[in-house]
Amino acid sequence: MNYYNVVFQPGDVVVEVMEGSTLKEAMTDAGLEFDFLCGGRGTCGKCRVRISKGLTMPVTREQEMLQAKELDGSIRLACLTTVHNDLTVELPNQKKLQHNILMASDERAFQIEPQLHKVFIEVDKPTRETQSSDWRRLKKSLVKQGYMDSELGSTVSILRQMPDVLRGANNRITAVMYENKVAGIEAQDSTKTMHGMAFDIGTTTIVGYLLDLYSGKELSVVSTLNPQTTFGADVISRLTFASHEENGLMKLQDVVIEAINKLIVEAVQKASVTQNQIYGISIAGNTCMHHLFLGINPQSIAVSPYVPALSEPLILDASELKLSINQAGKVFMLPNIAGFVGADTVAVLLATELDRSEDIKLVIDIGTNGEIALGSREKMVACSAAAGPAFEGAQISSGMRGAVGAIDHVYYRDKLEYSVIGGGEPLGICGSALLDAVAGLVELGILNKRGKILAFEQLTNPAAHRFKENLIQFEGQGAFLLTEAGITGHGRPIMITQSDIRELQMAKGAMAAGVRVLMETYGIQAQDIKEVLLAGAFGNYLNPHSACVIGLIPSELESKIRMIGNAAGTGAKLALLSLSEFRRAKDIAEVVKFVELGSYPRFNSIFGECTYFNIK
Amino acid sequence: MNYYNVVFQPGDVVVEVMEGSTLKEAMTDAGLEFDFLCGGRGTCGKCRVRISKGLTMPVTREQEMLQAKELDGSIRLACLTTVHNDLTVELPNQKKLQHNILMASDERAFQIEPQLHKVFIEVDKPTRETQSSDWRRLKKSLVKQGYMDSELGSTVSILRQMPDVLRGANNRITAVMYENKVAGIEAQDSTKTMHGMAFDIGTTTIVGYLLDLYSGKELSVVSTLNPQTTFGADVISRLTFASHEENGLMKLQDVVIEAINKLIVEAVQKASVTQNQIYGISIAGNTCMHHLFLGINPQSIAVSPYVPALSEPLILDASELKLSINQAGKVFMLPNIAGFVGADTVAVLLATELDRSEDIKLVIDIGTNGEIALGSREKMVACSAAAGPAFEGAQISSGMRGAVGAIDHVYYRDKLEYSVIGGGEPLGICGSALLDAVAGLVELGILNKRGKILAFEQLTNPAAHRFKENLIQFEGQGAFLLTEAGITGHGRPIMITQSDIRELQMAKGAMAAGVRVLMETYGIQAQDIKEVLLAGAFGNYLNPHSACVIGLIPSELESKIRMIGNAAGTGAKLALLSLSEFRRAKDIAEVVKFVELGSYPRFNSIFGECTYFNIK
Repeated sequence: MNYYNVVFQPGDVVVEVMEGSTLKEAMTDAGLEFDFLCGGRGTCGKCRVRISKGLTMPVTREQEMLQAKELDGSIRLACLTTVHNDLTVELPNQKKLQHNILMASDERAFQIEPQLHKVFIEVDKPTRETQSSDWRRLKKSLVKQGYMDSELGSTVSILRQMPDVLRGANNRITAVMYENKVAGIEAQDSTKTMHGMAFDIGTTTIVGYLLDLYSGKELSVVSTLNPQTTFGADVISRLTFASHEENGLMKLQDVVIEAINKLIVEAVQKASVTQNQIYGISIAGNTCMHHLFLGINPQSIAVSPYVPALSEPLILDASELKLSINQAGKVFMLPNIAGFVGADTVAVLLATELDRSEDIKLVIDIGTNGEIALGSREKMVACSAAAGPAFEGAQISSGMRGAVGAIDHVYYRDKLEYSVIGGGEPLGICGSALLDAVAGLVELGILNKRGKILAFEQLTNPAAHRFKENLIQFEGQGAFLLTEAGITGHGRPIMITQSDIRELQMAKGAMAAGVRVLMETYGIQAQDIKEVLLAGAFGNYLNPHSACVIGLIPSELESKIRMIGNAAGTGAKLALLSLSEFRRAKDIAEVVKFVELGSYPRFNSIFGECTYFNIK
Repeated sequence: MNYYNVVFQPGDVVVEVMEGSTLKEAMTDAGLEFDFLCGGRGTCGKCRVRISKGLTMPVTREQEMLQAKELDGSIRLACLTTVHNDLTVELPNQKKLQHNILMASDERAFQIEPQLHKVFIEVDKPTRETQSSDWRRLKKSLVKQGYMDSELGSTVSILRQMPDVLRGANNRITAVMYENKVAGIEAQDSTKTMHGMAFDIGTTTIVGYLLDLYSGKELSVVSTLNPQTTFGADVISRLTFASHEENGLMKLQDVVIEAINKLIVEAVQKASVTQNQIYGISIAGNTCMHHLFLGINPQSIAVSPYVPALSEPLILDASELKLSINQAGKVFMLPNIAGFVGADTVAVLLATELDRSEDIKLVIDIGTNGEIALGSREKMVACSAAAGPAFEGAQISSGMRGAVGAIDHVYYRDKLEYSVIGGGEPLGICGSALLDAVAGLVELGILNKRGKILAFEQLTNPAAHRFKENLIQFEGQGAFLLTEAGITGHGRPIMITQSDIRELQMAKGAMAAGVRVLMETYGIQAQDIKEVLLAGAFGNYLNPHSACVIGLIPSELESKIRMIGNAAGTGAKLALLSLSEFRRAKDIAEVVKFVELGSYPRFNSIFGECTYFNIK
C-alpha cells in the first residue's frame, strides 16, 4: 500500500494518507474543520477545493456536479476526490467558517440552588484507642454539619485519595457533596469557588457557558462547530453513521467529548479559572445529540416508531464521560420528550416557562428538524417537523450557513439590496435571506400560489417591473438573480432558482403544517395564541414579516412574534444552577404531549396546503 | 546498559534482564512463584538457589548467611545475587510449593438471602404515539414486579447496552437488580443461574469458594499463594513497599487482582460454569490486604496511631476493580475493626456467631499478627498480637511453611519421631512442629523457665536422658537436633536452636499476653471461658496440648479447645449469601471494642512474664 502527502493551503498543513483515501478523510486526519453539508455523500457540491499540484481526472459525479469552467480551473469536490499521488490542495476562503453563533439569550428570574455543595470540615485526629478510620472521622465531621451518618457514602476513588489529602492538609479539608455522597475531597478550604458549564449541543454548533455556581454569573461563552458534522451534516446521516460504520457510535461520541473538552479549556482560560474548579456540566441537545454524547446507540430514533433509548433525566460522573473537569464533577443531562423532540426543546420550554404561562404561547425552534410546542400551564403539546436543511442553506443552489460572506437579508427597494455577514463580497445566501427573497417575490406577485416563478409577461404588479433584469433563466427554469457573478467572492452568480423555491416550500410547509396540527390537537385557532416565541439562531435572525408572508408562521400572529435567542442554552444554564429547575425539566418532559405528525389524520393534505403561498 | 539471559531450571524458563538485576527480580519477571520469607531483604537465608552456569563471587552478606560447603557448591541467595552475565539457575525442589491450605470449614445455619436479584421481564414494544423510551418501558415492567418507579436507576453502561439487548431478545430480558438499580440486563430468561465467589485474602494464601447464590451450595474451592509475597512476606514489609516503592501500591493491588481473576477462572472451570455467571464477590482479609485490594494506601496502619483509612463495609462494582466477572457483579467488602484487627477477624466472629453466644468464648487466629477476640453477646473485645513470623517457620533456622517436606508434628517416644507433610524426606519444620518440639523440651525439663536449653548434666528428668544424642552445640549455643543431615532432602541437619526458642518465646509470649490483657479488660479469669476456638490454618494443625504446654493458650483451657477451620472463609461465604449476614458483619465491627496492647498499662511486664515457660 502506498502513502502520499497532501498539503493543504493556506497554512501548509501536511498529512500523509493511504492511497485511495478521499480528500475529506485527509482533511479529517489533518484535523481541519470543514463543513460537509451533505455529510460527504457527494450530493451538495459544497466541498469545492482547488488542486494546485498533482491534479487528477474528475470522477463522473464531479463532472455532473461542477461546471466545465470549474473543472478546468482545477476545482474538485473534496468528498469525491481520491488520493493517488502527492497533492497540494487549496481550501476555499470560507474554509475557516466564522459562524454567527447565537450567544445572547433572554434570561429570567430563578432561584440559585446548586446541586453540588462544598463543606469545609476539620476532621478529628486519629487515636490509638478508638481506632476510628479516616472515613469514619470524616463522616463524623459531616454529621456535625447536618448530614445523616447512615446515608453518607463515597466512591472508592475518593477513599483512595482520602488518606493523603487528610494528612497533607492536617485534617482540614473541603468535602464536595452531591446529595449525601462525598464526591470529592480537597485540601484546606476551597469553598469559595465552584464553577460549572452549561452546554447546548446542536447538530451544527456547540455553545458552552461558564458560570459561577454561587452567583449564577456568566464568566465566559465559547462555541465551536460540532465536529460530528464531518460524519454527516444532519441528524439522519449521523444516525446512519453511528449504526453502520465500524465504531461509528464511538467515533461520534469521542469527537463531541473532545470538542467539549476543548471548549472547557477555552472557557476557563477566558475567565482565568481552572478546569479543576468546574464541578458541574449540564447538557441540552436534541435526542440524537443526547444519545451520541452518552455513547448510547440512537438507532431506534431512525426507524419507526422512532423512540429514544432514554428520555429520563440522568446524572452521571464527569469521569464516566472522560470530561476534563474536577473529578467530583457531575453531568446533568436534561430529559428528552421523544425521538425527535429532545432535551433542547425541554430546555427551551424551561427557559420560556411555558409550563407556568397563563396565556397560550407558540414556541418554535426552526432548524433541519423544527421543534414546535404549543400550550400553557393547562397543557402542552409538541411535535417535530422535518423541514429539511433548506433553512440552513443546504440543498439551496447558492445556499450556505449564516457565516461570513452569507447574504443574510434582502430588501426590495428601488433596486434589490442586501446585507452580507462580515460586510465583504457575498458568497451565497443563508436561510434568513432566502426567506426575505422569497417573501418579496410573493409580495411582488412574481411567484404564484404554487410557488412558480412567473415570466415577466405574466406579472400583474407594476412594482415587480423594476426587477425585470433579475428574472433570468437557469438550466431551463426560471430563476431570480440576486447578484451578478462579477461581484461575488467566488465569481459565480448568486440566485434563487425554481428548485430553491420548491425546497423552501417543503421546509416552510412542514413547519406550518406542524403548527396547524398542534393547533387542531389543542383545539384552538391562531388568534387564541398570545405570543409566538422564536428560539435558536435562525429564529433570531429571520425577519418575522418575511416568515409570515411566506406562511412559515400564520400571518395573523406577525405582531405577536418575539425572538428569545438561544433559549436552549438558557434552559441548560437554569438546570445547572438550580436543582428545582432541573427537576422542573423532568416534569416538563413528562407533561408535554408528543404529537406524531406522520400518523396524524389528513397530515399529507395539510402539509400540501401549507406548501402553498398565500397570495393576497 | 547490558542485558543477560537467565535460565531457570527445572523447566527451562528463560528471561532477559538488565545487568545488575537480582535473581529475585528475574524470577518475578519470569512469573515464577517463589516464597521470599523475609521479602527479599537478605535476612532469612531461605532463597537458596544453585548457579549451574555463570557462577559469580558471593557478596559479603551471602558469605555470612551460607556455609562454606554451600558456597563451594554454587549455592547463592536469589535476593542478593545480581546478574552480570548469562546465568543458569537451579531452583530448589521446594520451588513449587504445594501449600497445605485449609479449605474445610465449619458451617452454621443461616438464611440464604442474596443481595442481587434476577427478574425476568417482557418489556412492552415501543409505539409511535407514546414515544415511551426503552428505559421507561423497561422500568414499567419492573414496576409490575413490585419495584418503585421513582427509585429505579441504572448506569450509563447498562443504558448503552439496553437498545441492542432489548431488540436482540425481542424485548424478553432478565434484569439483574441490586437494590433498586438495574445492574445488568441479559437477553431472555437467565434467572436460573446466579453464582458468586467468597474470598479470604490472607497475607500468605488466598482461598476462594465458588457458590451457587440460590442454594448456597459450594461448587468448587481454589487457592493460591498471595503473589504479594514476592514484595514482602508480612504485612509490615508490604506496607513499606506500598508507601516507599514507586507505584508500589498499584503493583500490590494489580498482583492480587490478577491472582483473584486467575482463581475465578480456575473455580468456574472446576465447576463447569462461566465467569459471566458470577455476580457477587465477597472479600475477607486483614486490614492491610483489604486496603491493598481496593488500592487504598494502607500507610496509616504502619505508623502510630495505626488507624485504617476505611473500616466500614463497602459495596462496589466489580468493574471498578477490574474483576473478570459479570458486568453487573458487585463486590462486598467486609468491614475492619482496627488497623491490625481486620475484616478477616470480623468474618471469623460472624462465622462463630460470637455476637450471639450466651457463653464467653475466646477466639484465636494465630499468624504473624495473631488476632484474638473474647466475649459473648453481652460484649466483645479484640486485640492484635504481633507474634512475628515464627509460627509460619520464618526466622527459625530450619523453619519453613506448612508445605510438602515440612515436619509438622514431633513426638517424644522411645526415640524422637516426626511426621512429614507429603511423606518424603524432611526439608525443615513448620510452626506446628516447632510447638511440639519445644513443648516436649519443656515437659522433659530440657528447657528452663526462661527458655534456656540446659546442658545434659543439668537435666533432672530421667526421661530426658534418652535424647542425649539430640542435644548438640551449634554456633556456640545449645541446640536440639531433630534429624541428621544424611536423611534430609537438602543434606543439612534439621534442628531447634537456642535462637529458635527465643523466637518462639517472643511469638507465644505476644499471643499469651494478648489473651491475658483481653481477660483483664473483660474482667474475667481463664475458667470463665467456656470455649476456645482456634481459627485459621495454623490453629487447625497445631497440637492443642503443645500449645498449652508452652503457654500459648492458658493450660486450664486445654480441654475447651476446638478447631474451627478457615472460619474467615466461612464468614466471607455467609456475607456473600446473605444480606442479613453482611449487615451483621457491620454490627460486629462496630460493637467489638478494640484493645490496643501497646498502650495497655503494664503491657511490657505482662509480655515479659508470658515469654516464660510454665515449668511444673
